[in-house]
Amino acid sequence: MAESVAEFDLIARIRTRAAAWAGPRDDVLLGIGDDAAILRVPDGHDLVVSTDTLNVGVHFPSHTTPFDIGWKALAVNLSDLAAMGATPAWCTLNLTLPESDAAWLGAFLDGFVELAARHRIALVGGDTTRGPLSITVTVHGVVPRGAALRRDGAQIGDEVWVSGTLGDAAAGLTRSSPSPDGRGVGVRGDSPSGPGVDDHLRSRLHRPTPRIALGLALHAIASACIDVSDGLLADLAHIGEESSVGALLDVEALPTSRELVAAFDEITRRRLQLGGGDDYELCFTAPPDRAEAVLAAAKSVRAQVTRIGRIEAQLGLRLREADGRIVDAPVLGYRHFDAGDAGDAPA
Amino acid sequence: MAESVAEFDLIARIRTRAAAWAGPRDDVLLGIGDDAAILRVPDGHDLVVSTDTLNVGVHFPSHTTPFDIGWKALAVNLSDLAAMGATPAWCTLNLTLPESDAAWLGAFLDGFVELAARHRIALVGGDTTRGPLSITVTVHGVVPRGAALRRDGAQIGDEVWVSGTLGDAAAGLTRSSPSPDGRGVGVRGDSPSGPGVDDHLRSRLHRPTPRIALGLALHAIASACIDVSDGLLADLAHIGEESSVGALLDVEALPTSRELVAAFDEITRRRLQLGGGDDYELCFTAPPDRAEAVLAAAKSVRAQVTRIGRIEAQLGLRLREADGRIVDAPVLGYRHFDAGDAGDAPA
Repeated sequence: MAESVAEFDLIARIRTRAAAWAGPRDDVLLGIGDDAAILRVPDGHDLVVSTDTLNVGVHFPSHTTPFDIGWKALAVNLSDLAAMGATPAWCTLNLTLPESDAAWLGAFLDGFVELAARHRIALVGGDTTRGPLSITVTVHGVVPRGAALRRDGAQIGDEVWVSGTLGDAAAGLTRSSPSPDGRGVGVRGDSPSGPGVDDHLRSRLHRPTPRIALGLALHAIASACIDVSDGLLADLAHIGEESSVGALLDVEALPTSRELVAAFDEITRRRLQLGGGDDYELCFTAPPDRAEAVLAAAKSVRAQVTRIGRIEAQLGLRLREADGRIVDAPVLGYRHFDAGDAGDAPA
Repeated sequence: MAESVAEFDLIARIRTRAAAWAGPRDDVLLGIGDDAAILRVPDGHDLVVSTDTLNVGVHFPSHTTPFDIGWKALAVNLSDLAAMGATPAWCTLNLTLPESDAAWLGAFLDGFVELAARHRIALVGGDTTRGPLSITVTVHGVVPRGAALRRDGAQIGDEVWVSGTLGDAAAGLTRSSPSPDGRGVGVRGDSPSGPGVDDHLRSRLHRPTPRIALGLALHAIASACIDVSDGLLADLAHIGEESSVGALLDVEALPTSRELVAAFDEITRRRLQLGGGDDYELCFTAPPDRAEAVLAAAKSVRAQVTRIGRIEAQLGLRLREADGRIVDAPVLGYRHFDAGDAGDAPA
């Protein structure tokens, strides 16, 4: 039997872990334990706030490990701070659990804390309630006044860039939920892609890396930025809408992991790279004459970045195929109330 | 059939309502529509953050109207800001819905907005996801540096005060869920208490009034403060624990609504007043020589306050009964993972 603990013990456990991981932060005047936290934004800085909810069976499969759930619940939120070019400072955790299970909570906090400690983000409040498993994390970051990266700054002629590789997380999801014959969709030929391949793809799904350092390095370089949570096309479309522009993407330029190449044929790969969510890479724009600055910024934080297209006056998204043809981009990406797909959708 | 709307339409509806109710706030540099909101804390002020989750069947009965759910989801959070003496500024809303129902969402937003507009709190972000009905609201307030009311400042000899009346919300809960014979527990005699009585009690349960103005008026007067969400004894115990003191309460002094008197016998009434949650009144302490200042502050915001006891060196809570006997206070209050009661429990 799982060890059951009362609510105030749950809170005490969380509070103890929260106090240990980040060391004291002198901008936390009052943390967990009162009606609210008291926090100090440094002079000359603005506050950046984002929040995301993850529900079992919607945002992660029910067999996901508690460690991975803890990691991902924080990661998807930190990714939003990365996309703003903000430095993480504080977070709150609302944890709804079907039952009080000390082992589950311990493993969940292990994952949460592993990532929180890397970014020295302090847990300053939250709520534990009973109900179907659901996690809401709200993150707070700070940014020098005027320095935040936004979606609405893309200019005609800017180049479109993306960090890391695309499609891996969506590929990992197909490998987490094999089809009845035990094979994912579009698996390449008959050759096994090997356990290392699937491990990598699933790791990209369950433990995404928020690109915090890259977001900070892009201050005063990127003209617009978003994180790839719903899929490249869906997220770049948000930049287009907010900036009143369109874009042309070169599909041959999309950064591709060797694991994705090993596991899927080209058609499936493209679909995963253009439409798959959950990569949590940064997609950003910058003027062509800042390309060297983009590359230097990425190198300074050991991030990979790839130029994948250009901002145009014509609204909407277009793709340049391998043969040079230009076609309208298909509508892809996850939308919660349209279909049953997993996915993330910040308001 | 309920009208179904896609997720991005849901967000658009929320965004439109959010833009309309509060008027522009020049401390919101970027609201809904990017990866995160950008907010400015005024110079010389600190940030105050609190968050609470409400789940169907746990925090509110499944038959609760969407208007009341919207109101209460914000009210319980604003009450935490009130207990800190903070001025509400911004909030985020994470809404998990089993299905996309435009009429439900409209009524929910009506309730949320009705209260939000009163306090000019801006909705600056959030998330809409699919799953069992659950609402998480995170509120942000500001307070002049050093002026926040906390739980840890109660001093031996301070008087204990409470706003409004106690026990009404818990009484309303018994009236929302009548026993099989159609009568609530402990109903007084055989005389009907009248429809106005039940309406009042249920209103106190479903539409609590956060005591924001009173919290602000108590700056530099109250030595400690908490909101009554889990029940008077449970919440005053938090002040005792954080301040390393105890308290003696005069049960005859507990403020009682005429509706509570009309509906319940004395024993039930006392139990509801000492242990019932969800009143969202403020319980606070102040030195005896500030009693006139407390009364003047309450009068200035047209709030009712009642002196109900005194802080003592002896830890724990004691009750002075009507006959003058002093007894240890019973352990009452809601704890999520101990029992099946509805209740709220901020971390």
